[in-house]
Amino acid sequence: MYNQILHTPEGVRDIYNGECRRKKYIQESLCRVLQSYGYEDIQTPTFEFFDVFSREVGTVPSRELYKFFDREGHTLVLRPDITPSIARAVAKYFTEEDMPVRLCYMANTFINHSDFQGRLKETTQIGAELIGDGSVEADAEMIAMVIESLLSVGLEEFQVSVGHVGFFKSLLKESHLDEEMELELREYISNKNIFGVRELLDPLPVAAALKESFAELPNLFGSAEVLERAERCAVTEDAKHAVERLKRIWDLVSCYGFEKYLTFDLGAVSKYKYYTGIIFQAYTYGTGEPVAKGGRYDTLMDHFGKPAPATGFAFVVDRLMSALSRQKIEVDVQIPRALIIYRASQAEKAIAKARELRGEGIAAELVQERIGRDYVSYAKKNGIQDIIFIEG
Amino acid sequence: MYNQILHTPEGVRDIYNGECRRKKYIQESLCRVLQSYGYEDIQTPTFEFFDVFSREVGTVPSRELYKFFDREGHTLVLRPDITPSIARAVAKYFTEEDMPVRLCYMANTFINHSDFQGRLKETTQIGAELIGDGSVEADAEMIAMVIESLLSVGLEEFQVSVGHVGFFKSLLKESHLDEEMELELREYISNKNIFGVRELLDPLPVAAALKESFAELPNLFGSAEVLERAERCAVTEDAKHAVERLKRIWDLVSCYGFEKYLTFDLGAVSKYKYYTGIIFQAYTYGTGEPVAKGGRYDTLMDHFGKPAPATGFAFVVDRLMSALSRQKIEVDVQIPRALIIYRASQAEKAIAKARELRGEGIAAELVQERIGRDYVSYAKKNGIQDIIFIEG
Repeated sequence: MYNQILHTPEGVRDIYNGECRRKKYIQESLCRVLQSYGYEDIQTPTFEFFDVFSREVGTVPSRELYKFFDREGHTLVLRPDITPSIARAVAKYFTEEDMPVRLCYMANTFINHSDFQGRLKETTQIGAELIGDGSVEADAEMIAMVIESLLSVGLEEFQVSVGHVGFFKSLLKESHLDEEMELELREYISNKNIFGVRELLDPLPVAAALKESFAELPNLFGSAEVLERAERCAVTEDAKHAVERLKRIWDLVSCYGFEKYLTFDLGAVSKYKYYTGIIFQAYTYGTGEPVAKGGRYDTLMDHFGKPAPATGFAFVVDRLMSALSRQKIEVDVQIPRALIIYRASQAEKAIAKARELRGEGIAAELVQERIGRDYVSYAKKNGIQDIIFIEG
Repeated sequence: MYNQILHTPEGVRDIYNGECRRKKYIQESLCRVLQSYGYEDIQTPTFEFFDVFSREVGTVPSRELYKFFDREGHTLVLRPDITPSIARAVAKYFTEEDMPVRLCYMANTFINHSDFQGRLKETTQIGAELIGDGSVEADAEMIAMVIESLLSVGLEEFQVSVGHVGFFKSLLKESHLDEEMELELREYISNKNIFGVRELLDPLPVAAALKESFAELPNLFGSAEVLERAERCAVTEDAKHAVERLKRIWDLVSCYGFEKYLTFDLGAVSKYKYYTGIIFQAYTYGTGEPVAKGGRYDTLMDHFGKPAPATGFAFVVDRLMSALSRQKIEVDVQIPRALIIYRASQAEKAIAKARELRGEGIAAELVQERIGRDYVSYAKKNGIQDIIFIEG
């Protein structure tokens, strides 16, 4: 009977025993970097009206949303993604602002995954959105912030892989495929399956140069030299522009001194349909999925009635935590701790001692003496340096 | 059309424009105090199985819970209260621990209020739980932490009102009222309606001394002298013990130097049925409802299969925020900020300048020059001290 009540629902969990303290430290480090770039904190509600995350917005599929009703019968959803909420808030509160709006947040997101066992359904995200700036410099700022933030928590071996949804989209447009074939092609490219691409396109009345470009796409990932090869595959004007933008991003990220963390992937596709320009993901060892992801979404603001170019990203803090722990990167910043053991008759003296230690920045824990308690192993287990007995 | 999509559901809201920064600062101050008392961070999931908050637990009524289903058809609820979740987690992970367990948390809670228009349905709570310590010293520690935390955010005029559910309960037991009368009596006492109490009890076969005690209950609030009067009303053994405990709390809180913030209220009742001993609430100007509340819950852990005495409290951060703002208490800790204006051709120079400033601890915001933008009023509005133009 007790067993069932002790469980957490599938995909969500308790975080304790030092892990939570480390998480807070990581969160504070990441937020400090975003703040140093001039981003201001915003908090949006944990649940919103369904329309904020509807199909047209192009975020998580409806079947993966946690849905419930308010007292009036409106459908509410636990936010699966923060970007649409920020877009809504900016449209609502910054209607008259003609300067770029920089916002950052820390919030939990909820996706009711069905496809993959063991994936977390509640994750903490920390992210930034820059709304009202369509420049390539804004794109580069996002990538620089991701890199600087990851460095700030001690991560060293990671790559930010940058793509551009305009490249693939413009080739697609030129090739006039039907929706089904497009989906199939997208799948092959996403899986880097060159044979699949060739086999699919072979019988179709598509220009040979275009076929070659598609077949080359899965290979178009790696360091900056990829952009030279991408240029040769850029058989449309839009594709050429996409490559130029990526080249400029390389230059600008170099100004930040972060080019060694940059790779490119022209075959990258995102499941979030609101992206319109560059997209990027940060990868490191110890987690198969990206620890950060983002991109440009120049049409999402339209949905909320305030057209504006925009770009943003989010860290998935829980994934970053497990990467750091698997890479054995120390992030523990425990303050000094003391344990004060006393008898009830000595409570006054014990409290006075505790106050003294706290005043010196030492966390002091008061525990009444009881036979059989093993203070030494408790102290060891909990990172307590001092055990103080209050004498009668 | 756009209008509807911009709204947040009733009772939840966006927090932005400096308010969110102030909230974070307050949260960090409160958490620092809890940490200095040896409390360790824990995070539990935003939603749990219904049973964790069921009627037997004695938290929020079921009709005020946000409920939905998982894929297997189990009922999930957004947590209305953190204490039952912490109790669950302690029963699960600290089964063998014979030392007191000190945990603290910051988390959002969700109550679908029906009774009161305009009340927030999502609020941030920061709290602490001390499990496995039944001593009066543990009770006093809770109250001392509340006071020290409130002082840490700059609040000066507040009172922590302490009661004891055992006092009223033992008088009730002695009077053998039926459930309906008990509810009515509870209501009168809670509303400090002495006439109601007298009228209700007058025709009943209850001892005269007991009737007098009930009628006196609504008057039993105020400073320490109340405890002398309470002693005279304590016609049962349990009521006497309750008064003694409160007297000892006065002594112990005095050791912390915090007695001037203490008042007593023997007529206090809590809607959370899991409280078994002292209960307390912190009140200040600018908000009708308490900014913190807590108490002892010695039987709640039984429900999760690990019997243990326990005590705890939570701050309602949003209420504390509005009290601070109405009392015009400054909590803004804005870091220095600069605005860098540049043309695209000067991006490299602008980035170099921004990096330099960020290295000095100044938040630097990069904005491209555009005709018609009013940098000065933007800077003023956003607490920016410096505007720097990058020359070609």
